[in-house]
Amino acid sequence: MANTFNSGTVLIAQSGGPSPVVNETLVALVHKLKERGATNIAGAPFGVTGILKRSEWLDLRAQTESRMDAIAKSPGMALGSRRKKPGEDELKRIAEVFRQEGVRYFFFIGGDDTAKATNLIRTYVTQANYEMTLIHVPKTIDNDLLEPHDRTPGFASAARFVAHAVAGTDRDNASIPGVHIVVTMGKEAGYLAASSVLAKRSDLDGPHRVYVPEREFSIPGFVADVKDTFEKLGRGLFVVSEGIMIKDSGGKLVLLSEHLGTVLGADGFGGLSLSGTGAMGDALVKIVQEKTGIPRARSDTYGYMQRSLLGWRAEQDVVDARAVAVWAVKYALLDNGGGSVALAPLSDSQVLATLAPLEIIGSGKRPMPQELLSETGCGINVERFRAYAEPLVGEIQKTADLEHLPFRPAKGN
Amino acid sequence: MANTFNSGTVLIAQSGGPSPVVNETLVALVHKLKERGATNIAGAPFGVTGILKRSEWLDLRAQTESRMDAIAKSPGMALGSRRKKPGEDELKRIAEVFRQEGVRYFFFIGGDDTAKATNLIRTYVTQANYEMTLIHVPKTIDNDLLEPHDRTPGFASAARFVAHAVAGTDRDNASIPGVHIVVTMGKEAGYLAASSVLAKRSDLDGPHRVYVPEREFSIPGFVADVKDTFEKLGRGLFVVSEGIMIKDSGGKLVLLSEHLGTVLGADGFGGLSLSGTGAMGDALVKIVQEKTGIPRARSDTYGYMQRSLLGWRAEQDVVDARAVAVWAVKYALLDNGGGSVALAPLSDSQVLATLAPLEIIGSGKRPMPQELLSETGCGINVERFRAYAEPLVGEIQKTADLEHLPFRPAKGN
Repeated sequence: MANTFNSGTVLIAQSGGPSPVVNETLVALVHKLKERGATNIAGAPFGVTGILKRSEWLDLRAQTESRMDAIAKSPGMALGSRRKKPGEDELKRIAEVFRQEGVRYFFFIGGDDTAKATNLIRTYVTQANYEMTLIHVPKTIDNDLLEPHDRTPGFASAARFVAHAVAGTDRDNASIPGVHIVVTMGKEAGYLAASSVLAKRSDLDGPHRVYVPEREFSIPGFVADVKDTFEKLGRGLFVVSEGIMIKDSGGKLVLLSEHLGTVLGADGFGGLSLSGTGAMGDALVKIVQEKTGIPRARSDTYGYMQRSLLGWRAEQDVVDARAVAVWAVKYALLDNGGGSVALAPLSDSQVLATLAPLEIIGSGKRPMPQELLSETGCGINVERFRAYAEPLVGEIQKTADLEHLPFRPAKGN
Repeated sequence: MANTFNSGTVLIAQSGGPSPVVNETLVALVHKLKERGATNIAGAPFGVTGILKRSEWLDLRAQTESRMDAIAKSPGMALGSRRKKPGEDELKRIAEVFRQEGVRYFFFIGGDDTAKATNLIRTYVTQANYEMTLIHVPKTIDNDLLEPHDRTPGFASAARFVAHAVAGTDRDNASIPGVHIVVTMGKEAGYLAASSVLAKRSDLDGPHRVYVPEREFSIPGFVADVKDTFEKLGRGLFVVSEGIMIKDSGGKLVLLSEHLGTVLGADGFGGLSLSGTGAMGDALVKIVQEKTGIPRARSDTYGYMQRSLLGWRAEQDVVDARAVAVWAVKYALLDNGGGSVALAPLSDSQVLATLAPLEIIGSGKRPMPQELLSETGCGINVERFRAYAEPLVGEIQKTADLEHLPFRPAKGN
């Protein structure tokens, strides 16, 4: 292989859940590939499913620029996705298709499951003695790819949504006091739930407590937090990550949603599908009603808005989503068999992105580091979390309350 | 009374649910009152409750301008709200407080229940032979105030949210096909649910069907719609207003959420509180799963984001929210005993706002006119609804899909 893409076919696919900027990555990838001389750029629809359906591959090179510009800003995944692990038979057939079609470069955009799938595909390609480069291009709003990934495209925009939504809901809750429970996405990492602290002005503001998968959740502890906050402030806003864990009667850590029986079903990667239902938030409201007697309790499950609200993105996230595509193309040309493109911390001005081993990135998820958590206060080390997340999420509009100036009529009236 | 506010006290309160722009109205009201010479401007916290607690009134005139500017842009209600009808005893005491404190002007910001309360207060004030002006300043995201109200401040921003959220969720659903159910606010009027059509590009896009309180809902009809759409498109997005009605076994129209047992509790105005839970959406998902066998079904309940997402507002809505305050002050000076400030249609460049009788505006809610509905297609007359709502909601970003260009590799590769 050479330092341009003038031989063979380049294939791109997307997988996993969409992000607000994942199409920026797709479009930047096509743009950069064209710039570097790629003449054959195909897109496989619906992830692995589409790779195996050659007749459905789309020509990405022939799309008009204006269309691609609009696609970049569109939520969802323009190529479509699939949330299912490829089976052994599929993997074997993929290797055959790649050889038959002369696919020399494969770019797979997605999260850790996608990195894992990319690595599996590579194993089969290698077994078939076929030489090609396979690159995992990162995307996940959960921000849970293992190091050296500093952050993942998609997270900052979703975090920006959570920060603004919770700040607004907190003003709403201050207007009509009660208990408000917010459920965010985030199955094994609490970054999105933690982002709710970004607009917090003082201890009076919500979120008054954030529950993340990195910390064991307990119902009596939660009830005590609610009671305590309500006694102090006459209201309370609590943010819960969909993936929080609780000890079952046998002392085993299980998902709270599983424990409460509020899970919708299984996903295709052997895990549980936690989104798409408000049941966990509603179950927590019921617990509050039953155990505290507080009359007004409500829940909001942020659901798909977090990853698909049209027009809602963080600027740095757009920059990142394009950057991973540019680096994916650069690393593909280094002819090293492939890897996962990992953004380096913003603070490191020397290194912008590295190529991480697929077997590592596909081996699991990264929880939030303990230093971002706190035993006291809202449960998040607000200062440290801000230092990490604010440069990504961007500035958040300041809210204000009336100053407590008692009314005294002017004399003579 | 004269054409300035230089005698007596002006009192302002807010009531009902917040809107994204209701603090614009409060701030514009204070600004205009100061401009017209009001020396005593008090704010009563938490609606009727605060009116009766004289010691808790806040000085609104003495707030700094920079603080008021930030408050105007903050979600929630800066004065706090109360969702409870005033009782007879409270009404009598309010009239006494007004006389004792020399309140000559009372501005009550809220929806139809607030107009009703304003009217009740006026009755008691009149019975007490006390001369003053009571103005209802409109606010409601449901857009359901009776004519001559053309639209109400708060609606356009919430509608803008629904339009963008559904457009994004539709792209998400197109990426990972399945059935997606979205529940919007809107208890007796379907305007918010209908706003989901604003970004719809063609029949292929969701929402594929919108269910509003103005039309009787039926579960078999819904199941048939879902099946039909799924057969045609392999997916489907359905938007449901929280206030949709169904015929019970006795042929009586009841709320679907009541019928399904998914109501959270009663509100303080004798109605049911429908928001704050995802249960109705989840119950509809269960119906889809049981009656259609479609494997992937999800629900999103938009909840409080609709009225409180920080930083999300429609420009015309901000203009309207300030305009009703300016007109409230103008009409207060006309010394006519009061009324409800109603915005005239944007198309009527001669009349900007009228003063409607409180007894009419407080007498009920306005459903969407039948001409905005449709028997076929998505259930909304998209063209007519756009003609009404687009000037209010503003432009919506265009999304795009890949063009279906089958991939054929260039020769020689």
